[in-house]
Amino acid sequence: MGRPSAKERKPYDGEAIADVAVRVFLERGYDGASLDDVARAAGITKASIYYHVPGKEALLARGVGRAFEALDAAMRERGAKSGAPAARLRHIVRRTIEITVAMLPEVALLLRVRGNTRAEKEIVARRREFDHVLARHFARAQRAGEIRDDIDPRLAARLLFGMLNSITEWYRPGGKLAASDIVEAVFRLAFEGLEPRRRS
Amino acid sequence: MGRPSAKERKPYDGEAIADVAVRVFLERGYDGASLDDVARAAGITKASIYYHVPGKEALLARGVGRAFEALDAAMRERGAKSGAPAARLRHIVRRTIEITVAMLPEVALLLRVRGNTRAEKEIVARRREFDHVLARHFARAQRAGEIRDDIDPRLAARLLFGMLNSITEWYRPGGKLAASDIVEAVFRLAFEGLEPRRRS
Repeated sequence: MGRPSAKERKPYDGEAIADVAVRVFLERGYDGASLDDVARAAGITKASIYYHVPGKEALLARGVGRAFEALDAAMRERGAKSGAPAARLRHIVRRTIEITVAMLPEVALLLRVRGNTRAEKEIVARRREFDHVLARHFARAQRAGEIRDDIDPRLAARLLFGMLNSITEWYRPGGKLAASDIVEAVFRLAFEGLEPRRRS
Repeated sequence: MGRPSAKERKPYDGEAIADVAVRVFLERGYDGASLDDVARAAGITKASIYYHVPGKEALLARGVGRAFEALDAAMRERGAKSGAPAARLRHIVRRTIEITVAMLPEVALLLRVRGNTRAEKEIVARRREFDHVLARHFARAQRAGEIRDDIDPRLAARLLFGMLNSITEWYRPGGKLAASDIVEAVFRLAFEGLEPRRRS
């Protein structure tokens, strides 16, 4: 079957297929899901999928790529790039929560990937880079004396991301809880404990 | 094939098979793994597995059951049953971390289960019960004025468990980090933020 060049593909069709693929990958696991499953869920033929994307790995990369792009963009925002280190850390935490809530399936898939294909390994590596970035922000805020320095910054980054990542496990869209409620709770639960203790 | 009665089965054999099954379920996902995979990984025949356990669901229940039993036992310990509510909450958090580190594969499997078989649904329900117990402890400590009361106790329980559950994602046994290091970091990161603010 001849596949059209990248130019000839209609990007909005590829995106719609990626929407379905993300859902199918979450339901069956990326390993367990086939392109046939995606085609069935989308109500189209496998040939139609191949018309838009090269295959299963490309659908994973596209779906998860959306979440990575949003997170990367947040890291480049003014609030993450300038100002006091602790405020930048807070900005990243707030934006990560907002993006997780807004792109729940994509972020959930991003977090669940743990396989051995090239696409999966790239996702794991990119996820690890976020851990490092957060750990560096922690260390910088510690050096600035803005957060307590008696926690290893890598451990702190993992625990804090653990808290944020759990949102994909329990958040129900359309419920009463807004992203801002979670942001506030995380700031209260984690950050106010991270600030230097004031002795009374 | 005639299966022996529960009395005739050698429990240590069933346990050894469960060890292998937990590993296989983690690697391939519970849905994606078959009893053939478990037999292959254990180096025994499928018939030998059936000699010891009724099937795949029983292996899941047995593997995950170990972690649940340890967690249930921790909830019945003196430290979780008596004393100030906040101290009981801390006891549960500390024991949950210790059990997670000590039974990493079993707890990881317990957390990843999200399927539709009866065994999986029971695990999800039992997991949810832990959330409720933790939320009740939070609420009790809030009523006692021992932790800040401007966080919804259910949301706090989810975020705190999110932090603890993440251990299965990043903890590497045999590394430098001991369970006690994680306990200390969680107490510093989360709990000291939960205690009533002292104004300077």
